[in-house]
Amino acid sequence: MPTVSKRGIEMPASPIRRLVPLAVGAMQRGTKVYRLNIGQPDLPTPPEAFEALRHIDRDVLEYSPSDGFLSLREKLREYYRRFNIEVETDDIIVTCGGSEAVLFAFMACLDPGDEIIVPEPAYANYMAFAISAGAKIVTVPSSIDDGFRLPPVEKFEALITPRTKGILICNPNNPTGYLYTMKEMLQIRDMVKTHNLYLFSDEVYREFCYTGAPYISAFHLPGIEEQVVLIDSVSKRYNECGIRIGALITKDKELRKTVMKFCQARLSPPLLGQIVAEASIDASREYMLETYNEYVERRNLLIDEINKIPGCYSPIPMGAFYTVARLPVDDADKFCQWCLREFEYEGQTVFMAPASGFYSTPGLGLDQVRIAYVLEKDELRAAMKVLRKALEAYPGRVD
Amino acid sequence: MPTVSKRGIEMPASPIRRLVPLAVGAMQRGTKVYRLNIGQPDLPTPPEAFEALRHIDRDVLEYSPSDGFLSLREKLREYYRRFNIEVETDDIIVTCGGSEAVLFAFMACLDPGDEIIVPEPAYANYMAFAISAGAKIVTVPSSIDDGFRLPPVEKFEALITPRTKGILICNPNNPTGYLYTMKEMLQIRDMVKTHNLYLFSDEVYREFCYTGAPYISAFHLPGIEEQVVLIDSVSKRYNECGIRIGALITKDKELRKTVMKFCQARLSPPLLGQIVAEASIDASREYMLETYNEYVERRNLLIDEINKIPGCYSPIPMGAFYTVARLPVDDADKFCQWCLREFEYEGQTVFMAPASGFYSTPGLGLDQVRIAYVLEKDELRAAMKVLRKALEAYPGRVD
Repeated sequence: MPTVSKRGIEMPASPIRRLVPLAVGAMQRGTKVYRLNIGQPDLPTPPEAFEALRHIDRDVLEYSPSDGFLSLREKLREYYRRFNIEVETDDIIVTCGGSEAVLFAFMACLDPGDEIIVPEPAYANYMAFAISAGAKIVTVPSSIDDGFRLPPVEKFEALITPRTKGILICNPNNPTGYLYTMKEMLQIRDMVKTHNLYLFSDEVYREFCYTGAPYISAFHLPGIEEQVVLIDSVSKRYNECGIRIGALITKDKELRKTVMKFCQARLSPPLLGQIVAEASIDASREYMLETYNEYVERRNLLIDEINKIPGCYSPIPMGAFYTVARLPVDDADKFCQWCLREFEYEGQTVFMAPASGFYSTPGLGLDQVRIAYVLEKDELRAAMKVLRKALEAYPGRVD
Repeated sequence: MPTVSKRGIEMPASPIRRLVPLAVGAMQRGTKVYRLNIGQPDLPTPPEAFEALRHIDRDVLEYSPSDGFLSLREKLREYYRRFNIEVETDDIIVTCGGSEAVLFAFMACLDPGDEIIVPEPAYANYMAFAISAGAKIVTVPSSIDDGFRLPPVEKFEALITPRTKGILICNPNNPTGYLYTMKEMLQIRDMVKTHNLYLFSDEVYREFCYTGAPYISAFHLPGIEEQVVLIDSVSKRYNECGIRIGALITKDKELRKTVMKFCQARLSPPLLGQIVAEASIDASREYMLETYNEYVERRNLLIDEINKIPGCYSPIPMGAFYTVARLPVDDADKFCQWCLREFEYEGQTVFMAPASGFYSTPGLGLDQVRIAYVLEKDELRAAMKVLRKALEAYPGRVD
C-alpha cells in the first residue's frame, strides 16, 4: 500500500479531541462526564437564527459567491464598526469557520519553510494549519506566573530570521483568557512594522472581555493597517459553532486577490450558515448581554473554586471562556487520562484538555490543563468538586 | 508590505469564475447572459431537504463530530450499496463539499514534490488543491477526436517516476462528460496495483450516466480496494451545491487516521448541510428520475444544436452535465471574453468557460469551451442560437 504524507504524520492529533474515546468509554460505563475540554458553548443560538432558517424561501440551495454573500459582508462591516474597526465590505472574505480563515491566511502568506512567531500556549490548530502550509510556528513562551501576559519583545526579536513572515496572536486569548493591553499591542505593532511582517490576529472572542480593560483590535493599531490579517468567526459569539462561518479580513488588496484564489477553488462558504450568521448579527442586546453575564458569573465561580483547591492555581482570565490552570500533578496528560479511565466520584468525572497540547516547547505546561467554562454554574461547581476529589485520589499527585 | 506566498502566485484563477466580472458588466448593460460556465444546477433541491430544515429542533447549532454525524454516514453507506459499493460507516469521512475531500486527500497522501497523474482536460480545481499541498499534477492529454476516452496506458506509464503517488480520475467526467469503460478502469487498476499508487476517484456525477453503459466505481475494481480514495459530494445529485457536504471514503485505516487529523483541525463539517444531506438521500425515485430525465433531454438538445452550428463539434457526453466543444475560433478565451464584453444578439449573450483552463499542457484546448447544460431547454436552445450568431459575428473566426 502507498504510505501517507510526511506532513500527515507530523500533524498533531487535536489536544481537545484526542481523549474523546476515553470520555466515550467513561460515559459507556455510566459515568457522568463534565466536558470542560472543548469550546462548545451550551448557551442557546439566537432566536433570530432559527427564525431565518424557518423562513428560507428558495427552490435551490445553490452556490453562494466565493467571498460570501454581499448582504452578510455588509452586516459584518456594520458589526465591526461597533468596535471601531473600520473595514470595507470588500475587505471581508467569508470563510468556512475561523478555521478556514487561518488556513487560507497561511496558504496565501506563507511558503514552505516560512516562519511565524506565536506566544504560547496557543490554540493548537494553528500548528495544524501551519503544517498544512509547510510553514513553521516558532513559539515564545508566556508564563502562568505572569498571568500569561505578552512575553518581552526581546524574546520575539531574538527569534526573527529572514524567513519570519508574521506574528500571530489570539486576543482575547484561547487558551489563556489573556487580553493584550494597549502597551503590548503597540509593542507588537512596532515589531510588525520594523520587520515588515504580517500580523495575524484571531479576535473571535472580542465579545467576551470581562475586566473593563479595552479590547484592542489589530485594526486599531496605526501604521500597519495593510499588514493586518484579521481572523473572525461567528461561532462563539452567537453560540453557533456548527454553522461554520468565519471571515478573513485584510486591507491588502494583493493578499485579498490571492486568498480569493483559494476561496474560488473551494467554490463557496456554506450557504445555510451564511443565512444564519446574517440573522444572528441582529441578535438583541438582551441576548448578547445574557450570554455575556452568564460567562462573567461562570468565570467568577470557576476561578474561585479552582483556586480554593489545594495546590491548584489559575490566573484570572480577562476574556474568552477558557483558563489555563496549574494542578498539583506529575503530568496533566496522565491525570486527564486517569480521570476518564479510572476515576469517578459519585458516578462523575471531569474531561479537561491537557495544556501540553497548546505548547510547542517540549516540557512546558506539563502540569497545566485548559478548562473551558461552557457548563452551567451548578455543573461547573459540581465539576470543580469532582476535580478536587480526583486530585486527592490521584496517585501521581505532587505537592 | 510583506508579499504573498509563491504558491499563492502560482494558484490558477478559476477558469469558471475568472470571467464573472465581465458577465456582471454585461448584465449591468442590460444584456441577458446565458450562464453555461458553471455546474450550478437550476433544478430544485428535494422537498425532503427543506422539510428537514423547517423541522430542526435544537437550541444550539453546535459542532458536529469531525468525521460527520454517524446517522449521515449510515445513510451514505446505504446509498452506496445501491451502486454495489460496499463500504462501512467507518470508511466514510464527511467533508465540507467534495472540494475539501480532494484537499484532504492530497494533504494526507502527498508531500511537496510528489506527483499525481491526471487525464486532461480535468476539473481545474484539482490543480489548485495540488498547489495547496505542494504536489505536482502531471497530465496525460485526451483528445476531443477520440471523444475524450482514456489515453493509452503507455502515455501514463511514461510519466511514472519515483515521486508518483497516485492517479486521479473523474468518472463520469467533468468537464468532458466521458464515462470510463470497464476495460479502461481495469487498465487504471493494473497501473495502480503495479506501481503501488493511490487511485483518487471523483465520482460525484454517478447519478448522471446516459448511455446505458455501466458506471464503474473505483471500488468495483478487485485487488486495489485499499488504494482507492473515493471523492463524493451530494451537491450535484440533489441540486444542493450550497450546503457544502461531501465525503472522502477509503478502506485504508492509516490514511483515514491521517485524514482525521486534518478534519479535527477544522473542527467539523457544516451542521445544517449535514441535516439537509441526510434528508436528501431519502429523495423519492420520482424526484431522482425527473432530474435525470431533464438532463437527458437537455443533453440531446444541446449536442444536436451545437453540432448543427457550422464549424462546431462536440462529442456526445455519456454522463455528468457538461460537454467540451470545439469552436471555429482563433482563441476560445478571447472569444468567451468578447461574447461578454462586446457582443449581443437581441439583447442576449452567452457565458462559457474557456477549456484552456482545464488543460495543463500549454497550447491544448485553445479552441475549446466547456458548456454546462444547467439551463432549461428553451433557454439552452436560445443560448445556442446566440452562440451561432456570435460565431458569425466574431472577428477571430477561423474555418
